[in-house]
Amino acid sequence: NEQFNKNPHRRLNILTGEWVLVSPHRTKRPWQGKTEEVNKEQLPSYDNKCYLCPGNTRASGDTNPEYQQPYSFVNDFSALLQDSPKKDFEDGLLLAKSEKGICKVVCFSPNHSLTLPLMKVEDINKVILLWKEEYKGLGALHYIKHVQIFENKGGMMGCSNPHPHGQIWAQESVPEEVTKKGVQFKKHWDNKKSGLLGDYLAQELKQRERIVIENQHFVALVPFWAVWPYETMIIPKRKLRDITHLSEEETMAFASIVKGLTTKYDNLFNISFPYSAGIHQAPTDGEEHPEWHFHMTFYPPLLRSSTVKKFMVGYEMFANPQRDITAEEAANTLKNLPDVHYSLNTI
Amino acid sequence: NEQFNKNPHRRLNILTGEWVLVSPHRTKRPWQGKTEEVNKEQLPSYDNKCYLCPGNTRASGDTNPEYQQPYSFVNDFSALLQDSPKKDFEDGLLLAKSEKGICKVVCFSPNHSLTLPLMKVEDINKVILLWKEEYKGLGALHYIKHVQIFENKGGMMGCSNPHPHGQIWAQESVPEEVTKKGVQFKKHWDNKKSGLLGDYLAQELKQRERIVIENQHFVALVPFWAVWPYETMIIPKRKLRDITHLSEEETMAFASIVKGLTTKYDNLFNISFPYSAGIHQAPTDGEEHPEWHFHMTFYPPLLRSSTVKKFMVGYEMFANPQRDITAEEAANTLKNLPDVHYSLNTI
Ligand SMILES: O=P(O)(O)O[C@H]1O[C@H](CO)[C@@H](O)[C@H](O)[C@H]1O
Ligand SMILES: O=P(O)(O)O[C@H]1O[C@H](CO)[C@@H](O)[C@H](O)[C@H]1O
Repeated sequence: NEQFNKNPHRRLNILTGEWVLVSPHRTKRPWQGKTEEVNKEQLPSYDNKCYLCPGNTRASGDTNPEYQQPYSFVNDFSALLQDSPKKDFEDGLLLAKSEKGICKVVCFSPNHSLTLPLMKVEDINKVILLWKEEYKGLGALHYIKHVQIFENKGGMMGCSNPHPHGQIWAQESVPEEVTKKGVQFKKHWDNKKSGLLGDYLAQELKQRERIVIENQHFVALVPFWAVWPYETMIIPKRKLRDITHLSEEETMAFASIVKGLTTKYDNLFNISFPYSAGIHQAPTDGEEHPEWHFHMTFYPPLLRSSTVKKFMVGYEMFANPQRDITAEEAANTLKNLPDVHYSLNTI
Repeated sequence: NEQFNKNPHRRLNILTGEWVLVSPHRTKRPWQGKTEEVNKEQLPSYDNKCYLCPGNTRASGDTNPEYQQPYSFVNDFSALLQDSPKKDFEDGLLLAKSEKGICKVVCFSPNHSLTLPLMKVEDINKVILLWKEEYKGLGALHYIKHVQIFENKGGMMGCSNPHPHGQIWAQESVPEEVTKKGVQFKKHWDNKKSGLLGDYLAQELKQRERIVIENQHFVALVPFWAVWPYETMIIPKRKLRDITHLSEEETMAFASIVKGLTTKYDNLFNISFPYSAGIHQAPTDGEEHPEWHFHMTFYPPLLRSSTVKKFMVGYEMFANPQRDITAEEAANTLKNLPDVHYSLNTI
């Protein structure tokens, strides 16, 4: 819809029920604001000062094993603790509740320099197997109702150690973002007797306007309601409530699309592309959740170049998320990028 | 509540109905992540390259008048446009609506170097008078249902010009954040026949644990549910739906508390303290909104020092906002800072 896409408009995020403001014409404005530093330094495969490398001693004094596979451990500075005393607090309009939980760190590889796009598909597959194990194990604890798997990549996204790793925060209550999605999934399931995300995916696969890559079992696309400039979502074609239900073949296809998508990201500005990524899955609250369809979302901050990001500030904090290019434009840009990582390009 | 405040817990934001995770013990972790640059350069009172200084020509080619008072004009690169063609779009699960609006820039002072804490109270008062005029004028347009007044201060908050200024985005629909607050205000009003924010303020004024400054007509406090490390709110003691209802004396008291609070902010790390600030007021949708109680909120990103900010990334994006120090600790720190701006300290 050409004419529509040139003018400011709002789009509905059907997964959260919230609107985003789209201002397609807005990147024309000159940028005199803050630029980010880009670290183009090539990392060594082992760094003796890194607290995530195999065999090294961490800030807590614990020593990492000489791990060869993806490795997880309890975060030395966890935001959630297992032994938080149970306590509710209600005093007029002040309401608080104690919150128990576990925070873990997941090292993707023993190699200090191997980010996801640079890992072999088989090795990313091993990361997913560890994610499955953690989701299952943590989710099985009676007091854990939600397991959030995520990665902050790059200093721009608050990552404090370049050794490729993600985190898992498991907790007693279902967090806000997941609650919102649960409500939307449930509504659609009850009304239509079908899955919300599957129905959406079917529509995207017909239109093919926002698809970045696709394989037999997964699709990576820029959602119609994307907020971040190059936001994407990886969606399994089958409606699976969580990653533990992936077959062996599907797990490998998941690994492959993660590699493909993150490679395109790095190729966008020829840098190790920063983002926060997270997997939204059914809560581990003991319910069946047939309405849930897991998916992995990437929120990358960069907008114009390797040094100019989109700031989600004033208007975005007080009013609505707002974006400066359309989802279709972003999808088109990503789709047309090479599939081979720029650093492996020997020409 | 000492014991409670040492352990991870959730607090309810009564204005949005959403929870925030508080991890009081977490600032103990060492920080090896990104540090921000601090610009300590003293700005001149006039800069011939600044497109906001009086008499200068802007990027659009328009020339600013030789303004002596706070000055507003339509943003040359507005995210919202007045002449957006009306159009709705619905295709299965894809939903969009055209959005009309007006974006304005408000220069606080002709002086390129005068941030709010450095301005005289009488001059801040003039900024508030201009805000009143804009809220009234824009809100009176038949198609404008909401007027968002805000300021992004500092490059860290995406501000692209250091000349002290704020923005106003007025639009056809009520944005998400304001809708959430409207629902909570209405619920309390209907149930209790009293104002939500007034009732909360009464409780805070009794407890006095989170109050930063107070004058005859206003209170500045760290809300119980604050998300950003040094987040604060300025609340008028009278339940006023918007700033146009402030008496002359109240307007001056508002100016005075803005100066007092932003002075404390600058004194926290002895820098020009970055933040996004915004005023939430009743929608301009023609309804009466007796439930609404306007307030101004400050979201400052810094956490540990002038160079280390709090990153709202992975967990915060996918799950819940999370903070690392308690609201009480932040309030106490701010309360005890000097009331005179560090740059005026001649000792
Ligand atoms: O309008 P400015 O100051 O150029 O832009 C700044 O504020 C806007 C409104 O909060 C944001 O959308 C932009 O990302 C930010 O850089
Ligand atoms: O745990 P890290 O990597 O030290 O910290 C990073 O991720 C956390 C979870 O998203 C955030 O709360 C922190 O603000 C961020 O710096």
